[in-house]
This record gives sequence, structure tokens and C-alpha cells, in this order.
Amino acid sequence: MIEDRMKIEEAILRENLDLLKEILAEDPSTIDYRDESGVCMSFIAAKTGNLSIVKYIVEYSRASMNTVDSKNRNILHYAAMSGNPQLAKYLVEKVGLSPVTPDVDLITPFEIAHEKGYEKLEKYFEQICGAGLSEMYKNPIRTGFYPDPSIVRVGEDYYMVNSSFIYFPCIPISHSKDLIHWHIIGFAITNPDWSYLDHLEGGRGYWAPDISYYEGRFYITATYRLNDNGRIYRKQMVVSSEKPEGPYSKPVFIDEDGIDPSIFNDEDGKRYMLLNRGARIFELNKDATKQISEAKLLYYGDQKRAPEGPHLLKKDGFYYLFLAEGGTGPGHRITVARSGTLFGNYEPCPYNPIMAQWDEKAGISRCGHGKPVQTQNGEWYMVYLCGRMLGDGYTILGRETALDPIQWTLDGWPIVNGLKGPSTLQKKPNLPECIWENRDFDDFDDDSLSVDWVFPRPPERNGIQLKNSKLWIRGSKAPLNSIEARNIVLRRQKDFVFTAETKMLVVPMYPGQDAGLICYYDENSWVKFGVFAASDGSRYIKLAEHIGLEDFHSREAVVLNSNEREIYLQVRTNYLRREFYYSMDGVSYSCFTTLNPVTYLSDEGLKMGKRFTGAMVGMYAYGGEKDLEVPFEYFRYISGRH
Amino acid sequence: MIEDRMKIEEAILRENLDLLKEILAEDPSTIDYRDESGVCMSFIAAKTGNLSIVKYIVEYSRASMNTVDSKNRNILHYAAMSGNPQLAKYLVEKVGLSPVTPDVDLITPFEIAHEKGYEKLEKYFEQICGAGLSEMYKNPIRTGFYPDPSIVRVGEDYYMVNSSFIYFPCIPISHSKDLIHWHIIGFAITNPDWSYLDHLEGGRGYWAPDISYYEGRFYITATYRLNDNGRIYRKQMVVSSEKPEGPYSKPVFIDEDGIDPSIFNDEDGKRYMLLNRGARIFELNKDATKQISEAKLLYYGDQKRAPEGPHLLKKDGFYYLFLAEGGTGPGHRITVARSGTLFGNYEPCPYNPIMAQWDEKAGISRCGHGKPVQTQNGEWYMVYLCGRMLGDGYTILGRETALDPIQWTLDGWPIVNGLKGPSTLQKKPNLPECIWENRDFDDFDDDSLSVDWVFPRPPERNGIQLKNSKLWIRGSKAPLNSIEARNIVLRRQKDFVFTAETKMLVVPMYPGQDAGLICYYDENSWVKFGVFAASDGSRYIKLAEHIGLEDFHSREAVVLNSNEREIYLQVRTNYLRREFYYSMDGVSYSCFTTLNPVTYLSDEGLKMGKRFTGAMVGMYAYGGEKDLEVPFEYFRYISGRH
Repeated sequence: MIEDRMKIEEAILRENLDLLKEILAEDPSTIDYRDESGVCMSFIAAKTGNLSIVKYIVEYSRASMNTVDSKNRNILHYAAMSGNPQLAKYLVEKVGLSPVTPDVDLITPFEIAHEKGYEKLEKYFEQICGAGLSEMYKNPIRTGFYPDPSIVRVGEDYYMVNSSFIYFPCIPISHSKDLIHWHIIGFAITNPDWSYLDHLEGGRGYWAPDISYYEGRFYITATYRLNDNGRIYRKQMVVSSEKPEGPYSKPVFIDEDGIDPSIFNDEDGKRYMLLNRGARIFELNKDATKQISEAKLLYYGDQKRAPEGPHLLKKDGFYYLFLAEGGTGPGHRITVARSGTLFGNYEPCPYNPIMAQWDEKAGISRCGHGKPVQTQNGEWYMVYLCGRMLGDGYTILGRETALDPIQWTLDGWPIVNGLKGPSTLQKKPNLPECIWENRDFDDFDDDSLSVDWVFPRPPERNGIQLKNSKLWIRGSKAPLNSIEARNIVLRRQKDFVFTAETKMLVVPMYPGQDAGLICYYDENSWVKFGVFAASDGSRYIKLAEHIGLEDFHSREAVVLNSNEREIYLQVRTNYLRREFYYSMDGVSYSCFTTLNPVTYLSDEGLKMGKRFTGAMVGMYAYGGEKDLEVPFEYFRYISGRH
Repeated sequence: MIEDRMKIEEAILRENLDLLKEILAEDPSTIDYRDESGVCMSFIAAKTGNLSIVKYIVEYSRASMNTVDSKNRNILHYAAMSGNPQLAKYLVEKVGLSPVTPDVDLITPFEIAHEKGYEKLEKYFEQICGAGLSEMYKNPIRTGFYPDPSIVRVGEDYYMVNSSFIYFPCIPISHSKDLIHWHIIGFAITNPDWSYLDHLEGGRGYWAPDISYYEGRFYITATYRLNDNGRIYRKQMVVSSEKPEGPYSKPVFIDEDGIDPSIFNDEDGKRYMLLNRGARIFELNKDATKQISEAKLLYYGDQKRAPEGPHLLKKDGFYYLFLAEGGTGPGHRITVARSGTLFGNYEPCPYNPIMAQWDEKAGISRCGHGKPVQTQNGEWYMVYLCGRMLGDGYTILGRETALDPIQWTLDGWPIVNGLKGPSTLQKKPNLPECIWENRDFDDFDDDSLSVDWVFPRPPERNGIQLKNSKLWIRGSKAPLNSIEARNIVLRRQKDFVFTAETKMLVVPMYPGQDAGLICYYDENSWVKFGVFAASDGSRYIKLAEHIGLEDFHSREAVVLNSNEREIYLQVRTNYLRREFYYSMDGVSYSCFTTLNPVTYLSDEGLKMGKRFTGAMVGMYAYGGEKDLEVPFEYFRYISGRH
């Protein structure tokens, strides 16, 4: 078989069509062979750029044109590597492949042509896409833990909220001018006494918020999800503010069961809350603090599994009801139904689902839970959640936020991205570009902590302090696998490939204390890397993992000289692989250990609790019964480097 | 847990909503319990007809509304059993369930209402469906082995062809006036010398035919699929005739590789053949007997796995190209693309697939491979193949033919059944009803054998004879597991539940000979039941199965008295279960044995050869080296009885 494979591979590489025909006539199945790196014969042919050979394979062999390699590249990716525009033209126009199909890194044939400097080919792809690369944006527009997006436009400004679960401050509010570039400007709950997160397990807390605007005020509502053991475990929280960034009013809680509330203000001045299951609706009082009617079911949804995330839009005489269905994993989708009257009956859209990714292996999947927005220029867009699964289905970045255009069909239905599922490269909205400052390096020089930092549950009073251009973390009294653990300082992992580094000052520690860098999912799964104090007073560089109910301590332990005053701790991440480095001088780094694969930092990597967030990275200190305060000089997050 | 389940079941049966709320507040997961027969709590609630309880379950419990029981019934089936129109109205209008959703037997809530005599409920469903039950037809319109349908209308008559594989006569041609009721009127190849099936393995032969009409003649083309071992294993066969029932011309073979040919006659008088992979096209000469241009790829398809079954339709300035994709199992689908010019480029329909069944557990699945037809009254319909899978996915009836209306969207795209997938009950076309005689009982009184009988490969000359109102079968020289076996007389199994019976005269037999009833898939899988001659000259009633490479003989053997002159042999079938009966007088029947499950008579039940046909039932005789002629007095097939 290896001989057969080498025979056909050679015929292709020598571009000998007659010999290839001969081989395939002998045994048609040889076209299915793959080389050592899993690249199939048709891809090898495409990479040669030989159109006749590719044509023969497409039209006369058993090769399917939806095959991908281990990095999710298809035959057009390989054709792009050849630079032959005629071959690309054939694959685009006759085989129907798209120049913007992503591989696992979301690299498209279009970008391959660009990077390799194939000008003619890039020009052709530009013509097919109707836009050059610089006129396009890439999904997800917000990478890492940004699930369940909701959006509102006020004038020329766009505001988005996302779920924050047990993270504090609660419910980040982000701002954009162009729908592509976003920055966090505030939170719905910043007062620790108003967050009510202290006793909640990971994955509970504030779920699926909605932001809306009514008579000069921003309203944010979300489900407050308690632990499973109570009789009441879901309530609806509402806050409001005149300013999008807050501060927001003290949360009020509406005692109606369900999840994913959103506020709909009808044209007659009445205000409503929608929530699941399906789309149930009840009337709110004027300031949206009280339920003033019983909830009624408007419509249960199109697919009828886990119908949630209801949003209403009134347009051209119709109430359009958007729902997320199918559960938030693979199979997730957005559907729409409409009615001439608010209370129905609702008619489902014949084109449902209007957004879904059927291909579980695709670069962007788990698509659903969206909300439409119209720009000041009349264009329509949908923000929605998506996930990018690695390996056998590990969403390490959690659920992210994507953006795609909405088209209205002639029969008056909204469809997203022409029903093609999530786009990878997409033409930018007709809006002025507005890029915010990069805050990936934090030297803790500011008066207050950047809004990019969050904590699992509110930190203790003075648990986190900025002093002398340093971040001082008071050691958690409870171990990190407890919901009582505090003062863990985290930020979102935004990339499959990144390096994170912190410079920590080495302070005296009691036996059993430790502090350093942490890669965190929730109290059930994390890995910490730093300085650990032994019972004899000596200090070691060590690593410890907590996975479910088990703890794993690194066999290695590097003794720290007693005269060391500072240490650089680094994690270099390449997909599911993490390498941990340390340095005493910030110049020479030693690899401490490598973990691979760290699936337990993904939504699917552990079956314990509710896992809806995504991997985080940051700093921690564990004090136990004795005091500990650890200063960190900076934290640096570098996208794309490992 | 059983106690908990009984508690909630009791609360529901007593229609005690307060108690139910109490129980669900304690533990929301109790709603997921099922009773002993797998019926979930929400269905039990629906069966009580209590709207308040069902509403509470729908809107406040975790129960999903796409749950089904072991017979694929959903909550509306159970609500229909209660007869409460208000409950049905809620489930239809707010939950969005359809009165025409099928269970595994294709029974819909609509029919339950009718059978139970719930007039108000039936009236309501009638109003929702826009038609009464008598105005509707049921899919599949042709049950049993009728795959790969192609259709043509000439005046007010409709003609259909289906694949016949190694069965002879080749390629049945069926006729209808109303698109619902069909009867076989002839075959594309009836001359055994023209069939070229003698050396082909099961599953080869004539694949996926197309019928078209051009200047007064009917044209039928199909792929002639040879065994795998030759260098050329696929050719395209063409025959024509002035009369739809034939006789047809001697087949000509076009040496172009591919499958699923169809003939397209363009408005400029040019004639073309389309075939896979994707849609390739070449020009034909005037009488469609010769290829006169090279094949070119028009379009590879939308999904790009196994693109096949191309059909072109010219309408309103567009060439519409229909394709079957995804392979003929679950995942099968119909897609469409269009172009202003014949040679493209083709643009895929945004609503693709325009017919598919995503739910593998649905009553009707495996939907794809279709061809559109317009009625004389301007309505459009699609005939397409479908399958009905039993148990863990066994299509025992093979691929069948279904019919659904085509709608044209405002933007000029054809969609099938409003993109809702296959319908079960559907409004009849606006055509005069025309029902053909039932030929399920054959007393062999006619001069020639009914067109419902077929043979695996052509029978021997005089292998099958009609004499004295009997069917005389000459014993096959080769064993039935050989492709040399001949004179096996078969008809399609059309139902999950049926009884088949034959009356066979008992004739002298040499040792090793046998004859009787047979349930047949191909030479690799069958079960025969009849009279077997032992080496001592005695005769026994016995059963023998052949599954793959193994033979299983029944342990039981009933001695046949030497004075018996006739025997009644019967198989009673209930899904995958078969009971075999015999009788000496046609009055008193004894059960010989029961087989369960006979999955090896289904497409998926054995991994050996090509399995694209379906279960057959009929009569056989095995002679071996010595002569044997066995008379059968009648064969009776009774739908729905077991």
C-alpha cells in the first residue's frame, strides 16, 4: 500500500496525467491515499498548480471536494499555495469553493495568496469576494470569553454586553464605533455588595445579559443563576443608567423563572421582558423594575430543543422574534419567527435556521444566540456567539462573539450571511474605523485596575491593591479549588497561541504559601506556576494542577536562592500545549515543564459543574491561615507568540 | 428513583398542578423520567388533555418539545389521544408542532384524531392543514424498492423510472395520472440477451435511470455498473421507444465514466447528457446514441460530498441544475444551482439544501435524488428517494419514492415542501384521481407473468413458465448464494408489516433439492423456507438462512408425509421480525420458527457488496445437478397483516 501510494504521489508530483489515469484505472481507491502528514493526493495535485491533473481528479476520481487535512485546509488552500489563478478559478467557479474558507487558524486561501505575494491570484480572489483583504474583517470579532452577546446602537455608538458568570465585576459593557473594534468601558455591577456571587459555584452567576436603550437610559438585564440546590435557582436581574459605562443602579430581581431575559419596548409605550423557555413575555412597569403581568408563551421555537435567548424586533409591521436553539454546543443555531401582532401567532421563517454551522469540524462552530442591530447607515448586522474547537472538540477560548451581515429576503425574512453560516473574512460595515488602544501590557501604573482584569467572585476588601506601580495581591485564605478562594486576578485568553508573562517580586512566605502565574477555568480546573514555600522555609519554583477532584504537583522543583528578589514567570501556549518558563533576570529563560494537552481548561475538558466560560490567565497568591501580600510588577499578554 | 417517578406520574395523572409544581421545585430533573414503556412525563400529561399542566411543563420545566417516544411519537400525538382541541391548539400555535408529524408507522396526530372520532379536533387540524384527510396523500407514494426516481410528463400522463440494479427485466417504467397512484407498465430492457447482467454481483447493473421525451420518443438512460474488478466499470446505457411501455430499442452504451446520466434537450435543438461527478455535460447526437463532445464540468455541487443525479430544467431564462449530494444514506439531500447560460457559471441556491431530512430518527429520512415535474395545471412537484429506517438504522424496504410540492420563491428559486423536509401527509395535486388494480394476489392465470415479478438476473430460457394456471419454476443449478443462481421469482416488500403466502405443489425431488418461499436481499443474504429433500429420499419442511459467508440451517425439521400433494408456505412480518408458517390444507397453520431481527435483509444489515436495493419476497426452487420443476398455484401478498 505504501508502494501504491508512492506511485500515485510520484505521478502527481511529476505532473504525469497519463500515468495517473493508468493508476486510477487499475485501482480507483488509490486517490484516497494520504501522505505521511495526512495530506491527500488531490491536495498534492493542487499544490503543483497543474489544472489538467486537478480537473481529472475532480471529474473522474472518487475524491470528494469537501475533504480537509488535519489543519482543516481544503483543496483551494493548496491551490492557493501554487499561485495558479486558472486553477483557483476552476475550483471557485466550477467546483464552487470559496476563497474565504478558514482552516483551523482561520487562514483562508485569500490570505495565502496575499502572504505568498501572488498578485494575480489575490486580485482574482478580490474580484470574487468584492473586497480586498484590507476592506475585510475577521471573525470572531471578539476572541476568548465573550459569550451571549447583546447589542444596542445609540446614535453612532454601539454597546455590547456579554455573560460574566461568577466573574466580577459583573457583565462587561463594551463600546464600538465600527462594530469590529471593541473595548470594555464598564460593568453592570461594580459594587461587590450588589453582586451576590460569594456562594455561587463556577458557571453560575450572571447569564446571557441584554442591553437596551429607552428614554435616555441604558437597561441591562440578565439571569441571576444560583446553585442547583435551592428551590428557586433563577431570577431576572435589571439595572439601568443614563451612561452606558455606568455606574448602574442597584440591581433589582424579578422572580420569574427562566433564562436569557431581554427587554422589548413596544411602539405603544409598553415595556416587556422576554425570556425562555421559548419566548415567554410579560409586561414591565415603566422603569423595568417590576413584573406587572403573568408570563405568556409567544412561541416555543423552530427546532424545539433548548429554545432560549429571545429577542424581539419590530420592523415593517411585523414583530420578528429571534431565538437561540439546539443548546450552546454543536447544533446551536439562530431561528426567527414573525407575527403581525405582538402576541402572535408566530410563523416560523422557512429559511430557519438563519445562522448555524452544521460542520462540527469547521474553524468556527457552535454558532447561535444572536441579536440584530441596524447601523446609522441602514445596514443590518447580527452579533452572535460562536466557538472554535480544537482537537476532538475542545473550546479552550470559550464562546466568542462573531458578527455577520443580515440580508432581508424579498419575502421579508432576515437571513444571516446569506445562510452560509459564520463567515471568516467579511466585508467591513460602512462605518468609520475606530481602533482602541491595546492593553495587553499592564505595568500597573494607573490609579485603578484596567477593565480587562476580572476576578472569580469579588475580591476581598483590599485584597487587590495598586501601590508603587505594582499590583499587590493578598493571599487567598481558602485554597484555589474552593469557591471561598479570593483575589485571583485574571484576564481572558484571546488566542490559541500566546505568551503570558508576569514579573513577581519575591517576598517572605510562610510554609505552604505560594504565588505566581495561573491558567484558570474555574475552581474545578486550573494550573498554577510560581514560588512555593516549603515547611523548612526554603522556596521552590513549582507547578500544580487541579483537575476535578485531583491535584497533581510537578515532580520537578527548582530551589530558589534566598537572595532572589524577583522572578519572571511565563506560559507559552500553542493550542492545547503549554510550556512554563521562569527567569531570574528577564533575559535568560528556563523551561520548567510542558503540559499537553490541557483540555481541562476548555468547556468540554472536564465533566464537573457548569462550563460555559473559557480559559483565563493571570496572577494569584495563596496565603492560607497566615498573611501574605505579593507584588507583581507587570503582566504582559502577547498574541500569536509561543 | 422509581418512587420519585411514580410521585410525579401520579401528580400528572391526578391532574394536580400544585403538587406537580412542588415536585419540580424540589428536583427539576424529575420531568425527564419515562415510564416503563419509555413514555415521558410530558406525554402522559398531554394524554390527560389537561392544558394547564401541559402549559406549565412546556413553559417552566426542562422538558424539550422535540422529544419522541420509542415509536417516534411526540407530545402532539399524545395530545391528540386526549381529543382536547384547546390543548392541540396550544401545541400547534404556541409550541409550533405540526398535526402531520409522523411516528415510525407514519401515523400523524391528524389521523389519531380521525381514528378516535374526535370530530372537533379533526376539524381543527383540517383547518390548520388546509385540507381534510381524504384530500391528502401519504409519503412515500411508492413503498419498497423504488429508488432514484426520474419522471416525465407527456400531456396528462406521467411516467417514472427507478433503478433496478441486477433485477430483470431492467428498469421498471411506471405510469400515473395523478402523481400518487402508479403502476408498472413495462421495462427499459426486456430481452435477456440485451441485459448483460449474467456475471454481475448484487447491487451492480442498472443504476439511477432517467426518462425524458423528445420529438415523439421516450428516452431512458441509466448507468450500467459492472463489477469492481474491471478497468472500465461504468458506462451509460440509452434506449428509446415511441411507446412509454416499450418495447425499447437495443441498448447502446456510451463509454463515459460517471453515474446517474440524464438527458437534457436544450431549446436550440441540441441534446446533452449530464452525469456525475457533480454535473458534467457532453453533447449527444440527434438520436442520443453517441457522445459528440468532451464532457465538461458545469458545477460540482453545494455540499461537495458524492455529488450525483444531475438534472437540468430551463425556466424563465435560467438553467436550474438539481443535484443529489451527501451520499444516499443519512445526510442525503437535494441542492439546486442556476445560471443564465447553459455552461455557467452556476450560482448555488441560498436555501440549499432544498430537500433534506436532518433528523436521522425521523419516520422518513435519507431524502435526496429527485427530479422536478410540472403538471398540466401549472403546479410543480418533485419526486425523490427516501428511506425509512427501523431500529438502529435498518432500511429494510430499501429506498422508496416520495413526492412533494415545489414552491418558487420570490427570488426565483425552487424549494421543496417549503424547506420543511419530506412530508408525510400532503395535499393531493390538482389532478384527476386514478387508481390502478391491486395485483397483490397472483393466481398465475394470465398468459404472461405480471410486471410486478422480477428476477435476480434474467431467468433461464424456460426457467419460468406459466402452464395450467400455475407458475412452474425450474430449479436453479447453482446454489442461491451464487451469482449463477437463476429462476428466483421475487416481488418488492412494500410494508413493514405484511404476510406473504404461496401454495406450492409437492413434487418428487432428488436428495439435496429444495423449493419454497424466499425472503431475499441479494446473493449474500436471504432466508428460504420450504420443502427440502434429504439423502434418504424423505422430505422435510425446513428453513435456511444465508448471511454473508455463513449458512444457518434451522434446527427444526418437520417430516413431510409422502402422500402430501401441496403445501402452503407463509411468512408473517412485523418490522424486523419474521414468523414462518406452513399448512397442509390452507386452513390450519403451524408456526415453524421465528427470526428476529432479520437485519440482513436491509441495506445496512450486512457489510458485503453494494447494498442499494431492499427486501424482496417470492418463490424459488433449487435443483442442483439434477432436474427439478416446481409448480406454484398462487402467491398472495397482504399489506398490513402479520
